[in-house]
Amino acid sequence: MTYLDERSEPSSASELLDLFYATRTQTEKLTAPLNDEDLGLQSMEDASPPKWHLAHTTWFFEEFILKPFLPGYQPKDNRFAVLFNSYYVQAGPRHTRSRRGLLSRPTVTEVLSYRAHVEDALRDGLSRGGFTLDPDRLDALVTLGCHHEMQHQELLITDLLHALSFNPLLPAYIPSQPGAVTAIREQDWTLHAGGLVEIGHDGDGFAYDCEGPRHKVWLEPYKLADRLVTNGDWIAFMNDGGYETQTLWLMEGWAVREKNGWDSPLYWWQQDGQWWTYTLQGPRPVDLSAPVVHVSFYEADAFARWSGRRLPTEAEWEAAAEATEIEGNFLENGTHIPQGRHASLWGDVWQWTSSAFSPYPGFSPPDGAIGEYNGKFMVNQMVLRGGSCATPKLQMRSSYRTFFYPQQRWQMLGLRLAADQ
Amino acid sequence: MTYLDERSEPSSASELLDLFYATRTQTEKLTAPLNDEDLGLQSMEDASPPKWHLAHTTWFFEEFILKPFLPGYQPKDNRFAVLFNSYYVQAGPRHTRSRRGLLSRPTVTEVLSYRAHVEDALRDGLSRGGFTLDPDRLDALVTLGCHHEMQHQELLITDLLHALSFNPLLPAYIPSQPGAVTAIREQDWTLHAGGLVEIGHDGDGFAYDCEGPRHKVWLEPYKLADRLVTNGDWIAFMNDGGYETQTLWLMEGWAVREKNGWDSPLYWWQQDGQWWTYTLQGPRPVDLSAPVVHVSFYEADAFARWSGRRLPTEAEWEAAAEATEIEGNFLENGTHIPQGRHASLWGDVWQWTSSAFSPYPGFSPPDGAIGEYNGKFMVNQMVLRGGSCATPKLQMRSSYRTFFYPQQRWQMLGLRLAADQ
Amino acid sequence: MTYLDERSEPSSASELLDLFYATRTQTEKLTAPLNDEDLGLQSMEDASPPKWHLAHTTWFFEEFILKPFLPGYQPKDNRFAVLFNSYYVQAGPRHTRSRRGLLSRPTVTEVLSYRAHVEDALRDGLSRGGFTLDPDRLDALVTLGCHHEMQHQELLITDLLHALSFNPLLPAYIPSQPGAVTAIREQDWTLHAGGLVEIGHDGDGFAYDCEGPRHKVWLEPYKLADRLVTNGDWIAFMNDGGYETQTLWLMEGWAVREKNGWDSPLYWWQQDGQWWTYTLQGPRPVDLSAPVVHVSFYEADAFARWSGRRLPTEAEWEAAAEATEIEGNFLENGTHIPQGRHASLWGDVWQWTSSAFSPYPGFSPPDGAIGEYNGKFMVNQMVLRGGSCATPKLQMRSSYRTFFYPQQRWQMLGLRLAADQ
Amino acid sequence: MTYLDERSEPSSASELLDLFYATRTQTEKLTAPLNDEDLGLQSMEDASPPKWHLAHTTWFFEEFILKPFLPGYQPKDNRFAVLFNSYYVQAGPRHTRSRRGLLSRPTVTEVLSYRAHVEDALRDGLSRGGFTLDPDRLDALVTLGCHHEMQHQELLITDLLHALSFNPLLPAYIPSQPGAVTAIREQDWTLHAGGLVEIGHDGDGFAYDCEGPRHKVWLEPYKLADRLVTNGDWIAFMNDGGYETQTLWLMEGWAVREKNGWDSPLYWWQQDGQWWTYTLQGPRPVDLSAPVVHVSFYEADAFARWSGRRLPTEAEWEAAAEATEIEGNFLENGTHIPQGRHASLWGDVWQWTSSAFSPYPGFSPPDGAIGEYNGKFMVNQMVLRGGSCATPKLQMRSSYRTFFYPQQRWQMLGLRLAADQ
Repeated sequence: MTYLDERSEPSSASELLDLFYATRTQTEKLTAPLNDEDLGLQSMEDASPPKWHLAHTTWFFEEFILKPFLPGYQPKDNRFAVLFNSYYVQAGPRHTRSRRGLLSRPTVTEVLSYRAHVEDALRDGLSRGGFTLDPDRLDALVTLGCHHEMQHQELLITDLLHALSFNPLLPAYIPSQPGAVTAIREQDWTLHAGGLVEIGHDGDGFAYDCEGPRHKVWLEPYKLADRLVTNGDWIAFMNDGGYETQTLWLMEGWAVREKNGWDSPLYWWQQDGQWWTYTLQGPRPVDLSAPVVHVSFYEADAFARWSGRRLPTEAEWEAAAEATEIEGNFLENGTHIPQGRHASLWGDVWQWTSSAFSPYPGFSPPDGAIGEYNGKFMVNQMVLRGGSCATPKLQMRSSYRTFFYPQQRWQMLGLRLAADQ
Repeated sequence: MTYLDERSEPSSASELLDLFYATRTQTEKLTAPLNDEDLGLQSMEDASPPKWHLAHTTWFFEEFILKPFLPGYQPKDNRFAVLFNSYYVQAGPRHTRSRRGLLSRPTVTEVLSYRAHVEDALRDGLSRGGFTLDPDRLDALVTLGCHHEMQHQELLITDLLHALSFNPLLPAYIPSQPGAVTAIREQDWTLHAGGLVEIGHDGDGFAYDCEGPRHKVWLEPYKLADRLVTNGDWIAFMNDGGYETQTLWLMEGWAVREKNGWDSPLYWWQQDGQWWTYTLQGPRPVDLSAPVVHVSFYEADAFARWSGRRLPTEAEWEAAAEATEIEGNFLENGTHIPQGRHASLWGDVWQWTSSAFSPYPGFSPPDGAIGEYNGKFMVNQMVLRGGSCATPKLQMRSSYRTFFYPQQRWQMLGLRLAADQ
Repeated sequence: MTYLDERSEPSSASELLDLFYATRTQTEKLTAPLNDEDLGLQSMEDASPPKWHLAHTTWFFEEFILKPFLPGYQPKDNRFAVLFNSYYVQAGPRHTRSRRGLLSRPTVTEVLSYRAHVEDALRDGLSRGGFTLDPDRLDALVTLGCHHEMQHQELLITDLLHALSFNPLLPAYIPSQPGAVTAIREQDWTLHAGGLVEIGHDGDGFAYDCEGPRHKVWLEPYKLADRLVTNGDWIAFMNDGGYETQTLWLMEGWAVREKNGWDSPLYWWQQDGQWWTYTLQGPRPVDLSAPVVHVSFYEADAFARWSGRRLPTEAEWEAAAEATEIEGNFLENGTHIPQGRHASLWGDVWQWTSSAFSPYPGFSPPDGAIGEYNGKFMVNQMVLRGGSCATPKLQMRSSYRTFFYPQQRWQMLGLRLAADQ
Repeated sequence: MTYLDERSEPSSASELLDLFYATRTQTEKLTAPLNDEDLGLQSMEDASPPKWHLAHTTWFFEEFILKPFLPGYQPKDNRFAVLFNSYYVQAGPRHTRSRRGLLSRPTVTEVLSYRAHVEDALRDGLSRGGFTLDPDRLDALVTLGCHHEMQHQELLITDLLHALSFNPLLPAYIPSQPGAVTAIREQDWTLHAGGLVEIGHDGDGFAYDCEGPRHKVWLEPYKLADRLVTNGDWIAFMNDGGYETQTLWLMEGWAVREKNGWDSPLYWWQQDGQWWTYTLQGPRPVDLSAPVVHVSFYEADAFARWSGRRLPTEAEWEAAAEATEIEGNFLENGTHIPQGRHASLWGDVWQWTSSAFSPYPGFSPPDGAIGEYNGKFMVNQMVLRGGSCATPKLQMRSSYRTFFYPQQRWQMLGLRLAADQ
């Protein structure tokens, strides 16, 4: 069962509106510290300006809910259908992705007004029962729109970090806060018996299509590190020649490393013999006890090989996480920096797995444009698990799969080691 | 004699300040219609955001006049020395050119305050005679700074057009004005005897280093068209297969055309059987009587070959223009669109010549960073003459040489035909 | 157990020499129809000249067996160690891959003499027991060298096809033979129960490291097509707009398709309303009953989606194939063209699976340069199964995994459909 | 008057055949030391395989003389018209330039047989007066064909050097000869009065179209160095930081230098504290007294700036050379290495000028495909003068202009300094 099927326990309209407004408010809270120029920044094709995120998340509600299911709905501006479609072929033409940063018009004010227009229409439609759609499916779609917007909250934060990182003034998005005084903790292991387990979403509550169907997987006994790999661990790897030892790397990873001149995680530099990093709180010395972040799959894989361990598979991670409590450093904490204070399997940084992003047995995407949400990305990407300091906590569940290309680093990406027993 | 030598008749301090403030005010007048996001737009490496032009023209006065010659001058922000240096190696390191559009900080307000800071310091220094420099050379440097800023007024306008052109909303920078009702005029010829002529700046008044030394050139008798090539002419070329006939093109031009899929000037498209173009007044039908603009050297050269004529050399153009009055459509007219109302050799669009941008006999650039102004560009570029609707009229003189790469189109570039007698 | 572990039943020295000479002879038989210039052709970085394959397969025996384990061995030419190393970092520096086609020296004669030199040394060493290595491990290494050379026989054939395909004369490598008169056969299904199965090499006989360890996998009930997808099927897909329907494609696949202008399999063109293809027998009309070949993973995946079916996983394929007889169209048949005459799961064309090339649970590569054989490629590639008309039959076993990038097409790559029951 | 006009003193048929056979024999003499694989090497798009030069020079006679003007002529193979056309659009389609190295067929033997076929037809036609063309124009065309082939002799040699340079075995094309024992000679100057001079071909004897019309040019008094810049001079430049001092370079030159990592001329490397270079005689220590070769225009220009001098214009060079005897190190000497033994303005290495390759006043190319010979290259290239050790002496005359892109280095390119008086 996915978000498009009927819900066993649909939310009430008021619960739904609570979720909706909480999500919308949170997005605008994230953009509040930014000026108009910041809101227009796009530093690479993979990233989008904050203003575009504000608009696209609005477009999603308009395109998939208001236009098809709310008779009489008048779009704010018909041209936004093209400007703010991301990649949904079945939703029509799209503005060129690499040129999102050139959209100085509509202005920020106009985009905020677009947000209000769509919010009003949705609230109105809900309160007067105006939608031509079963309540269950309406609920599923609005919930999807909210989760979609949560995903963009994370992108907004990480895209912004990337864009600001090119400014030699190294501006701080939020004021610098005192660093954690976390003691450096030795890594230990938790043991897992494996066997014939089940993973994947079980149909209770919201999930993306790619999280199902729930299915059986055989696992040999394994163990997982009880904490994330830290900056201290990473510096040991660097000092041991990790970035110069080709035999530690996948062939492709080595080529990418050479081409880009990688010798440390993204946003790191050395200054007076110390490693510094650029964060949303501005430049800071690297905190040895905090989880390493902004490393690619290639680097994570090389680190694991160097350590004599390996990355977990996504099934190993999920089987271990399923019964645990979701607590950790998520977006709501508002530090926007990994800290390493929680001993759980969750939060701080996404954890690279050794699993390619593939369809689960029996997977088929829903019909229509919504079916493009995840399915068409199932090649050449690797799965990450666990969420990060930029992920809304509400999004987290053990079956959640995010995925990135093995060379990407601008998200909050780190790792946790695994090993055979 | 160049702008760095002593002037025969130096301006008075008050004349100099008049020029200075007139120039500075004009720049800000150009940015007045723009919002903060517009001011940050950079659409390609060749172009810069309007805000950057505001700051860089200020940096020029600070770096070349205030810092070295005004004791006690306190820079607004030492980091601006790097952020707003364009290409002057001898003036120290430079922010990466392609990333000027990522400088959301300093903000627009801060840049305007930087402008005021430098203006105040210059006025102060001048009024109290605080500069450690001969008045003649000070005059020459301030005049250079003003002409430099005038060049950036032109770039600001044309860079902005380029940036806005990627916005599917096709925004207008200034309100649309009724089109010219110019009658289409047949082209005729003016005859020129040639012989042993002199070209180049004669030392009277301001000129850039590359305009001198004045020197002898032998010219065979020639003739020049009495008007620019028009959009009507260009459509005839297009309709005759000009863009599909390889033999009309230089080999490199053809390759560039193919790679970029050129089939008309930049910013043109067809709509309901008519050609339209995007301008700073928004989208408009192509005016057949107006000069064609936004064509590369390759296209101009192919057109000339198709017409059975040729482009003039820069010496031919200058020898003909030297005795004529400078009147035409320049920046001050404020239309920002070529119109073709003037019969002179001047204005509306820059005119491609067949001359590569090379040093004149005896040329040597001045010492120091200022010597990088023109000299280091003397390869692979072609000279254009005559100024355009984006050029301040004050910049114009018969010896003025501008230069662009043969594939560039985003400036106000057009052509006038020539022929042997 | 892999090829580097002791063999339970090692071959006798004479059996080993038989395998060795059979392999070596077969390689030279493949190059016999070629002239010296053909032998030097390299048409892309992924492919190598036939001469280079002749030399590199020789280098493999020299570098991994003769140099370390045969005291007194004198290399033919010390410089060959660099020239003919492919990608083994631990075996020292390597000649740039994209420049293998520029090695006109050593000449063909010198390379053949290098082959003889190494063959003589190996035979000598074996016959006089001169190796400083356990017989079991020696046997494993020589066997590996032979299988390595068999892999290069396949590459030699397919690289050659690629190189010759750029020649407008469309030369035939071998004389054209009459096409198969195979009737077009409807596709049917074979049913497989799935459950908790085991896949991977069981340690009996030769296998590559990446084929093990043998391990448990849970499979839901599934079915496999009883024949490969044919050219006739493919043309139906093309005629139904398969190459123009974006929703059938993975996002990345669509981008690759667009960039490369794919509208049919590699080596196909249309002529007088009929599809033709270039083969090692020269140009031929496309045979509707033969298996489609030279399609990328992206195309295979789009075809499967269009057909309403899917690609099998590698575990599904292996579980079904394990008990079947290996019969089909392999290299030894000498046609070098897929024919579709066999009803088995084997031969004709490699079959794309939906499985990314990942390490099996518990996999770790052997130490040393040999460990680079497969392990460092385990990212971004997809597994294929079953062998092709260019694969030596001796290489085939149900656990054999080959792997290519999803955009690659120059190998003999096709597909067989699968479906859930 | 160009090569296509009637000759004032046409050659006799036997003189013409002497020239023809002398040229053809010389080409084959150049390929004699090469094996079949060498003959197929193409190392970059700018260069062609020796075999292709053998065929293309033959195609030129076939396409421009035999096919149009010899009734009954039967081409050897109609497909060669496409394979061996270089860039003549009006002569029909062309095989892709970058894939000339993939033409293993036709074989070397077939190409030599093609040469003989065309030679026989031409001799036959001439001896029996079979051409439907005025003797004068026939003479002009055959002479052009011979000069065309001489140009390709030079390319053949330099393309070969480039191709072999990628072979780590550093093979010698011809046996190494003892180096020159030339004393290092101080540079002195020759003075030239300038004034209103004439340059360009005067119509007497063969010349390419771009060498005319003869025309007036005004020159200020100037001086030319009495020898070429030597390797010793160049090393002084290098040791003085020439390659690291950005202010010596044109902006574009510096970018090219950085991108390619240039720190010395092409084919140079350092070994045990000494500079070595790769030549057609194999690797050799750099000879300090010999002219520097394989430097780009950007490097030559930077060197001239460093030396406080400049490059000559092509008019200065030609005016000085017109009255001098043509003696120097040309192709016929057979060393294929610059030596610096001659004091003349000629030979050893081509001399970069500061002149862009532009049409002379009144230039118009001949009609038809032959008109594509030079005219379509007149942009972004720089003129060189004087010929080199790879240029047939017969080609040399004071009006001869060769031209290359400012970044190209694989030809025999060097420089001679000039200065104002």
